[in-house]
Amino acid sequence: MVAGIIGATGYAGAELVRLLSGHSKAEKLVLSSVSFEGGRIEEVYPNFLGRISLPLLKAEDVIKASDVVFSALPHAVGESFASACQEKKIHYIDLSADFRFDDDEAVYNTWYSKTYQFPDLHKKSIYGLPELNRHKIKDAAAKGAVIIGNPGCYPTGASLGVYPAIAKEVYGGNPIIVDAVSGTSGGGREPSRSFHYSECADSVAPYKIASHRHSPEIARNLAVMAQMSGKPAPKVIFTPHLAPMNRGILSTIYIPLSEKFCVTPDKIEAKTDEIRNIYTDFYKDETFVRVLPTGLAASTNRVRHSNFCDISVNVDINGSTLIVATAIDNMIKGAAGQAIQNMNILFGYNETTGLENIPMLF
Amino acid sequence: MVAGIIGATGYAGAELVRLLSGHSKAEKLVLSSVSFEGGRIEEVYPNFLGRISLPLLKAEDVIKASDVVFSALPHAVGESFASACQEKKIHYIDLSADFRFDDDEAVYNTWYSKTYQFPDLHKKSIYGLPELNRHKIKDAAAKGAVIIGNPGCYPTGASLGVYPAIAKEVYGGNPIIVDAVSGTSGGGREPSRSFHYSECADSVAPYKIASHRHSPEIARNLAVMAQMSGKPAPKVIFTPHLAPMNRGILSTIYIPLSEKFCVTPDKIEAKTDEIRNIYTDFYKDETFVRVLPTGLAASTNRVRHSNFCDISVNVDINGSTLIVATAIDNMIKGAAGQAIQNMNILFGYNETTGLENIPMLF
Amino acid sequence: MVAGIIGATGYAGAELVRLLSGHSKAEKLVLSSVSFEGGRIEEVYPNFLGRISLPLLKAEDVIKASDVVFSALPHAVGESFASACQEKKIHYIDLSADFRFDDDEAVYNTWYSKTYQFPDLHKKSIYGLPELNRHKIKDAAAKGAVIIGNPGCYPTGASLGVYPAIAKEVYGGNPIIVDAVSGTSGGGREPSRSFHYSECADSVAPYKIASHRHSPEIARNLAVMAQMSGKPAPKVIFTPHLAPMNRGILSTIYIPLSEKFCVTPDKIEAKTDEIRNIYTDFYKDETFVRVLPTGLAASTNRVRHSNFCDISVNVDINGSTLIVATAIDNMIKGAAGQAIQNMNILFGYNETTGLENIPMLF
Amino acid sequence: MVAGIIGATGYAGAELVRLLSGHSKAEKLVLSSVSFEGGRIEEVYPNFLGRISLPLLKAEDVIKASDVVFSALPHAVGESFASACQEKKIHYIDLSADFRFDDDEAVYNTWYSKTYQFPDLHKKSIYGLPELNRHKIKDAAAKGAVIIGNPGCYPTGASLGVYPAIAKEVYGGNPIIVDAVSGTSGGGREPSRSFHYSECADSVAPYKIASHRHSPEIARNLAVMAQMSGKPAPKVIFTPHLAPMNRGILSTIYIPLSEKFCVTPDKIEAKTDEIRNIYTDFYKDETFVRVLPTGLAASTNRVRHSNFCDISVNVDINGSTLIVATAIDNMIKGAAGQAIQNMNILFGYNETTGLENIPMLF
Repeated sequence: MVAGIIGATGYAGAELVRLLSGHSKAEKLVLSSVSFEGGRIEEVYPNFLGRISLPLLKAEDVIKASDVVFSALPHAVGESFASACQEKKIHYIDLSADFRFDDDEAVYNTWYSKTYQFPDLHKKSIYGLPELNRHKIKDAAAKGAVIIGNPGCYPTGASLGVYPAIAKEVYGGNPIIVDAVSGTSGGGREPSRSFHYSECADSVAPYKIASHRHSPEIARNLAVMAQMSGKPAPKVIFTPHLAPMNRGILSTIYIPLSEKFCVTPDKIEAKTDEIRNIYTDFYKDETFVRVLPTGLAASTNRVRHSNFCDISVNVDINGSTLIVATAIDNMIKGAAGQAIQNMNILFGYNETTGLENIPMLF
Repeated sequence: MVAGIIGATGYAGAELVRLLSGHSKAEKLVLSSVSFEGGRIEEVYPNFLGRISLPLLKAEDVIKASDVVFSALPHAVGESFASACQEKKIHYIDLSADFRFDDDEAVYNTWYSKTYQFPDLHKKSIYGLPELNRHKIKDAAAKGAVIIGNPGCYPTGASLGVYPAIAKEVYGGNPIIVDAVSGTSGGGREPSRSFHYSECADSVAPYKIASHRHSPEIARNLAVMAQMSGKPAPKVIFTPHLAPMNRGILSTIYIPLSEKFCVTPDKIEAKTDEIRNIYTDFYKDETFVRVLPTGLAASTNRVRHSNFCDISVNVDINGSTLIVATAIDNMIKGAAGQAIQNMNILFGYNETTGLENIPMLF
Repeated sequence: MVAGIIGATGYAGAELVRLLSGHSKAEKLVLSSVSFEGGRIEEVYPNFLGRISLPLLKAEDVIKASDVVFSALPHAVGESFASACQEKKIHYIDLSADFRFDDDEAVYNTWYSKTYQFPDLHKKSIYGLPELNRHKIKDAAAKGAVIIGNPGCYPTGASLGVYPAIAKEVYGGNPIIVDAVSGTSGGGREPSRSFHYSECADSVAPYKIASHRHSPEIARNLAVMAQMSGKPAPKVIFTPHLAPMNRGILSTIYIPLSEKFCVTPDKIEAKTDEIRNIYTDFYKDETFVRVLPTGLAASTNRVRHSNFCDISVNVDINGSTLIVATAIDNMIKGAAGQAIQNMNILFGYNETTGLENIPMLF
Repeated sequence: MVAGIIGATGYAGAELVRLLSGHSKAEKLVLSSVSFEGGRIEEVYPNFLGRISLPLLKAEDVIKASDVVFSALPHAVGESFASACQEKKIHYIDLSADFRFDDDEAVYNTWYSKTYQFPDLHKKSIYGLPELNRHKIKDAAAKGAVIIGNPGCYPTGASLGVYPAIAKEVYGGNPIIVDAVSGTSGGGREPSRSFHYSECADSVAPYKIASHRHSPEIARNLAVMAQMSGKPAPKVIFTPHLAPMNRGILSTIYIPLSEKFCVTPDKIEAKTDEIRNIYTDFYKDETFVRVLPTGLAASTNRVRHSNFCDISVNVDINGSTLIVATAIDNMIKGAAGQAIQNMNILFGYNETTGLENIPMLF
């Protein structure tokens, strides 16, 4: 099978190249890059020397040669490629936000200042959070070429942390607060003041408070989860922070407990165990979600370089709020890894193929 | 004036030494250290060579020679020194938790597993958050030797962020959530796995979720603030995190808005400005609190090496929660700097004496 | 094939576990740990959860169950295990210094303050730098169970950087200076002041100047290389530094040029190209050595998480010294990866088996 | 006294602003910035809020209002300002390379691709390394307005490390090798790929091998030192590296010993002590040079935030080379601090005025 990657020289694109190079079903990779067209990937990423040597073509040539196309372009420039893939009847997995709001162009328009160029495509695309939409993806793949809107990095960590609480009625009030810390690779490859070493090293700060584009995506995901149980959409507050680390997103999530899960302070330990068991049970068939045992808190260095999402669960000191912490590698489960997981589902491969990496503590 | 420092070789103690060396009123410093008694401070901290050269004595000798004593010892070992200072009629400023819960030995006992050895001392000691208790400290100093319980690092950043919201009735519901990220120096000088470079670099994680000793201190502070307006104590949830940076605490605080401050989404900007003005006005006479202008979020690298507490204020996307971010240097406003601020108040010095440092961006 | 790892819970041991878990020929791993005997590896390294789940046994049980044994113990405690493996006729690969000085117990004794417990073992062990001793290793394996003294991390980066210069008579004077910078993982898992985050983050310093134990190992390697061309042993100066990074060793090596390679300043570029070609040619069959093209300097983030040794080559501004920079991942080519490379040679596997990792830029 | 700073919004400029704000003789600061003209320094550096509030003017207005002018502009743009200061008869301290090669325009032209616009100015400017040229600076100031070429960061650390060895005939052969590691702030404030967090964090690499512009400056300084003893200019090799730290330069310098200082291996310790004493004695009147006692190696975190240059001295294992390590804060002794030291000399102030900062370990 031939996998194509459009936008292969950005960080997410290069991570797709790296991971797909070790994917047993991807016999060949075909790459494109606007910035480095005519060059080679190992010139842009000399760390690939001796392992990966591939030319950087035009996007059109990638589509022509591929059986599936990943797009790691910025928002609002890739719809025509999705359309071309549909015509060619091959799957298209988009890592940008373009296909994440298919039910709601208005939200997309509000947050990304763009309208849909090919509205029809958005009627059949699927939001690619496998733990939520695996069956939809499988069903669609059975019928033809699929467009996947690959989730944002923050929404992945946030949604997986909240899903069991909503599905199992642990959640019982508003707002759900997602306080998240990201590594710098989430900011991409282009140099800027915010990611200039001397300005961000040895420091932590929030950014885009009450205005980050992942807010509506998180809110929509939780609304979908609530709707599945016939419940109204939760209110969500999301605050992203930047920390001096290369990879990883740590999300600390505060979920008001439903009445039946609230406890008096003396019962907190038992209630924590009960809810942890609910989470463990909920994710028991999910190969990439690890609900951590008692005493372990989610930590980004335990998922580094893997497609895992680690989840730890605690009841707060007052007995009225669930504190969930989730950790993902923002480049893998938060981007390229999840895209490959979606590809595996689309093609009927084992979901872990190419994603067997064991987390590196450092 | 002679300042004594007991426990001078821990990080907080050494920071006191460094800062007091530049304090125009402290003509002489006298130091003690259990671990390095008989040695010299510049042997333990060779960065001091050529600037500070002082022997490390016994605690008793420090008390004998001093006009004020700072204790940077661990909890539960310093009460007798406080007692000795009372007898000698000199001020005692304790950076441990021993004099932070003077009204409530039960809480101290629950969280620190100790009872008071000299219960009388706790009847007259004062919690040294100057922005809250400046007048109490001044009044007490007018009457005799004072014992100051210097606040914890997390409680400082959290309390200053919430105080105006409670005092000005912006706060209107429970719980108040304090999600905080600390640098590694907060863990002190003793090596341990948690602070071993390879285990904590390039990673972020929460720790002591729902069980950190600063939880009751934060809750008590907010209760005191609420009580001043005749309101019941807020419920508080506190989650500390460790980030790979040397100094700094960034606290992101979620405060449910009272009814009159809740807004519809179209009015968020105006309401944010209104609340920012309330904060600015509230702290207008506080030399060490900077309420940041629109568009700036609190960031630890803007307060590094200073006694400032930076505060940014935002109303969340739903119009129902205030998002306050505060940044302090945990070693200065969170420990040694605040202790010196308390000394300045006790002695009637200008409050900024010795604390004029301009923050270093890096 | 069953691979045993003694000392599996130190950093090098755990890296062996991680890498061997993905080795297609290692059907089973058997582990021991003195510190955590009776426990499980995934308890000590929760990053392994869901990927690796193995009990921690006694060393004796590891040897009993294995077809090859890796020892990641400290030096001076493993000789008896080597002896047991010899008796059982299985290969033993020792990552400590115990089998690195087999020709010269006196040097070992001087630098490690120990004598050999089983002198006979040292007569047949082989220093496992494959680029130097591949054929010796193969030949020995053809005859029976082999003991491999796996090279130190610094000596690996230093020796590979100098080897072509000596072999091809580019080197022509003394001393050869090796100025190297290591990441913190080289210090191992035990917490200490030197590796305490606040003491080593955001700082660079040399350590053990003129006294590091890797000095004699580097000198011996270069002497062996010189002897192969009938030349006297070079004099070597080695200075290690610690930098705030998790992984990697960057060695900058200054080699006085032989007369025929010295140039006038106007010919430096051409001479640099000539020597680079010599290096490239010398290593053309080495799958793990990458001689970098013009304009690229060796950088630790281009070899991170791989078994590569990157080498860049420059002639200095005066035309009389070769400046070679080499980069390795100290945990992989500098420890566990090279040990696996040695295993692959011993067993006649493809040398890259289990070591196909593509370097991660971050 | 009024101090003017041209180019106040770059890192070196802002450091001048920060340090001069605490200088007891600088009653007023006047700033200019091309990029932010019309704005205010505290808008560009919000860490200054509440401490420094100054408008950003035109360079001409700065010169008009000042008694001394610091220029923190890039090279090749400031000569006309130097000329204006000469006309106005005020001192001009240039932190760029423009006045570092006054005896040798050819070298400047080769390395900076510029010719002198005002050749006369270069006849009377002085290279501002106080430890070398203090008396020249004093003498010139006695006669009129002086132009100071403030040294580069690397040349400062390198020159101070070699000076006693040359002056006291410890040095005795070629080449002198300077292997140096810098923090990222040396790269300035403008974002670029090299200083993009994800590309330089957690990694070390050399750059501009055999081609860095500080090479000729180091070589010239050592030549001047040698000339003072009637000796020929030493050959110098200089390799800069980038490490993931904000501040600091660590230089490890290899100096071939003269015959009378060479020793047999058994005498290394004694010879090291002897040479250390020579260094200590040589710098006994230098307030900013600390020759470290036995057992301490220079480390950037011991000079952080100070104007110190720390020096450690060792004889190598073969007894034929001196290994000197020096540490400076590149922003202070390597830039703004040294410039202020020069100002203090020019004005006859105590040399430490405004530079009393005690190094911060973290």
